[in-house]
Amino acid sequence: MNAEILCVGTELLLGDTVNTNAAFIARGLAELGVGCYYQSVVGDNAARLEESLRLAFSRAGVVITTGGLGPTYDDITKEIVASYFGREMELHEPSLEHIKAIFERFAPGRPITKNNEKQAYMPSGAVVFENERGTAPGLALEGDGKIAIMLPGPPGEMQAMFEGKVAPFLRERSGKTLLSRTIHLFGIGESTVESILHDAMIERQNPTIAPYAKVGEVQLRLTAGAPSREKAERLLEPLEREVIELFPEYVYGVDVGDMQSALVALLLEKKLTIATCESCTGGMIAARITEVPGASGVLRCGVVSYSNESKENLVGVSAQTLETYGAVSSQTAIEMARGVREVSGADIGLAVTGIAGPGGGSAEKPVGLVFVACAGPWGEKVIELKLSRGYRDERENIRNMACLNAMNLVLRGAGI
Amino acid sequence: MNAEILCVGTELLLGDTVNTNAAFIARGLAELGVGCYYQSVVGDNAARLEESLRLAFSRAGVVITTGGLGPTYDDITKEIVASYFGREMELHEPSLEHIKAIFERFAPGRPITKNNEKQAYMPSGAVVFENERGTAPGLALEGDGKIAIMLPGPPGEMQAMFEGKVAPFLRERSGKTLLSRTIHLFGIGESTVESILHDAMIERQNPTIAPYAKVGEVQLRLTAGAPSREKAERLLEPLEREVIELFPEYVYGVDVGDMQSALVALLLEKKLTIATCESCTGGMIAARITEVPGASGVLRCGVVSYSNESKENLVGVSAQTLETYGAVSSQTAIEMARGVREVSGADIGLAVTGIAGPGGGSAEKPVGLVFVACAGPWGEKVIELKLSRGYRDERENIRNMACLNAMNLVLRGAGI
Repeated sequence: MNAEILCVGTELLLGDTVNTNAAFIARGLAELGVGCYYQSVVGDNAARLEESLRLAFSRAGVVITTGGLGPTYDDITKEIVASYFGREMELHEPSLEHIKAIFERFAPGRPITKNNEKQAYMPSGAVVFENERGTAPGLALEGDGKIAIMLPGPPGEMQAMFEGKVAPFLRERSGKTLLSRTIHLFGIGESTVESILHDAMIERQNPTIAPYAKVGEVQLRLTAGAPSREKAERLLEPLEREVIELFPEYVYGVDVGDMQSALVALLLEKKLTIATCESCTGGMIAARITEVPGASGVLRCGVVSYSNESKENLVGVSAQTLETYGAVSSQTAIEMARGVREVSGADIGLAVTGIAGPGGGSAEKPVGLVFVACAGPWGEKVIELKLSRGYRDERENIRNMACLNAMNLVLRGAGI
Repeated sequence: MNAEILCVGTELLLGDTVNTNAAFIARGLAELGVGCYYQSVVGDNAARLEESLRLAFSRAGVVITTGGLGPTYDDITKEIVASYFGREMELHEPSLEHIKAIFERFAPGRPITKNNEKQAYMPSGAVVFENERGTAPGLALEGDGKIAIMLPGPPGEMQAMFEGKVAPFLRERSGKTLLSRTIHLFGIGESTVESILHDAMIERQNPTIAPYAKVGEVQLRLTAGAPSREKAERLLEPLEREVIELFPEYVYGVDVGDMQSALVALLLEKKLTIATCESCTGGMIAARITEVPGASGVLRCGVVSYSNESKENLVGVSAQTLETYGAVSSQTAIEMARGVREVSGADIGLAVTGIAGPGGGSAEKPVGLVFVACAGPWGEKVIELKLSRGYRDERENIRNMACLNAMNLVLRGAGI
């Protein structure tokens, strides 16, 4: 079973919206073991949409569209697909009820317009996917060995519908269980990872192993296919163990999503609290930790000590240290970590000070020089990083890498 | 002149990379006034890439590709396009020198491999675009009224090359100057904006006016085309003034990029400093302000007072206030703003406290209830927000909207 992704929307063609939908669906298809060789984008134009649909069905059995299910006259996806399958449009009562309920909730008393009623008309024989988050239902049409799946454009609506309705719909038709596990590595490059993995590992067919370079980390995705979940798990486990043993210093988690989630989970498990003191990262570490629901169980407080006075006043870095070694120094970093730990009563104090640029660098302390310090129950540690690649607008990269190194330092210290 | 975007890369088909390149190029083309009706994605597969290239050239005069210019055997874009144009590959000496220089810089002494040498081979007659940020040069090929433009896949390299080399290359061929201005509005919905704009405005041909709904804001893009920059400016100015007058309470800037940039620019101009005290936003406001180069001139410090103790200890919220009204209350918010202003000596104290969810809500104080307070030279102000839409994973949205409302409150107070 091969699929193709066809995203509909003039906002995509104008570059006003980044096509996160295509990536989300592509990843979902890969996890379902459904091949996908093409993605396309067209505007809200009937002739071009119809042509693209014909082309996609000439290459794939399943075509998944996003967009063009809204209430306005230029939302035409459903109508074009219906005509491709030779179906008439008919009123789908449950969808009309759903739309009325949404109106009642968000605009009580406002009469439902003809335009919104249009969203409740479906091609005959369609499987309708209720939209938990908006007025546009999704739908699937099957015929002549072809399947069209139409999803709404807003990512929140689309993602919920894909996970809740479309993935089960496709899984049922593929009759295979695929199980994936993602091993997260930090502090090692993709090419080094590949050279350490045996050739035999990379060439395996089931389970497969695939490396992905992310910003600042490498992920290894292990995927096994089997008739049942249990059998797939039995295939995965030995490989997972073997891979982790190859990278003992770099693996920071399995299926953890991202580093902040791994960090919060670990601290919750170990019943440890943390406090941050950030200079060049300006609050990014605290902001990332608090992205994770439940972070209030681990983060006591954060301090963004952007000025020297705030380093002294808020976390008690000594004026002499600042004077002697400067704000960007291992000495200041460790006093920041110690200070915020003390002031907050947290188990762990984590601090970052550095030069994110573009200004502020010198020959002795260039842009990209960053110190990360951690003070915890297991002692104190400070690391020096040189994060500059010499490009012009690298501020974002330096700050991001400083964040990741800081969180990784705690993950190491807290003993994973 | 119409263009089509063709992105090459298996990582896009697998959904491991979001296709930001397509959006960036699409926006660039729109600004150049070059029409674009299709975007496509194919993997690193010769037959499918060749087929897609043929299809694209059957619909457009210019095809812009990204990806497949790297050193490995599955990087084939250049070779496929060369064969489409009937050109031979030949060594391009300046590119070889450039690659050698990069090796010397990042891996001194490491010999340059055959693979990397391959990156210096170009189809005969190509216009080569030097890559300031990596080893893969970009290039353009022209023939029979068709133009192929090939760009590297990494976004940083691609963006710099598009702005520095490709845009001027295309501008020269289109012979028209397009000038755009973006008016940023906050606190008003797209449909309200559209209903306030006169029909006559929306239907104008030159300059055009186009609204774009972004997360939490609406942007109005005004674009004028003329033989010279001066003439384009003369067309734009009266419309810009007219539009701003329609939305006096909502416009927070023109061509400002984003709200944090507008805020930092305004505070620098007014010589005002700021300090933040964040609860539910957990450092996001400070992190956004410090995204902007030069933020050290305005941000004194930030406090992430996630626990009640830190609200008391770090910024001096009174225990009685916390006891009587709770951590999420207008009283606590205003004491946080006042406290961080005092503790830091900044001109402005900005504070946020609220319930981002998913846990922690109650009937009286539901998820999405957020208080934003600002204490400044012009007095104190606190606003109450209800940011829940009732969906499941809305934590990110609530935190984001709280940030934007907080920064907007300062923009209003500091008098734009």
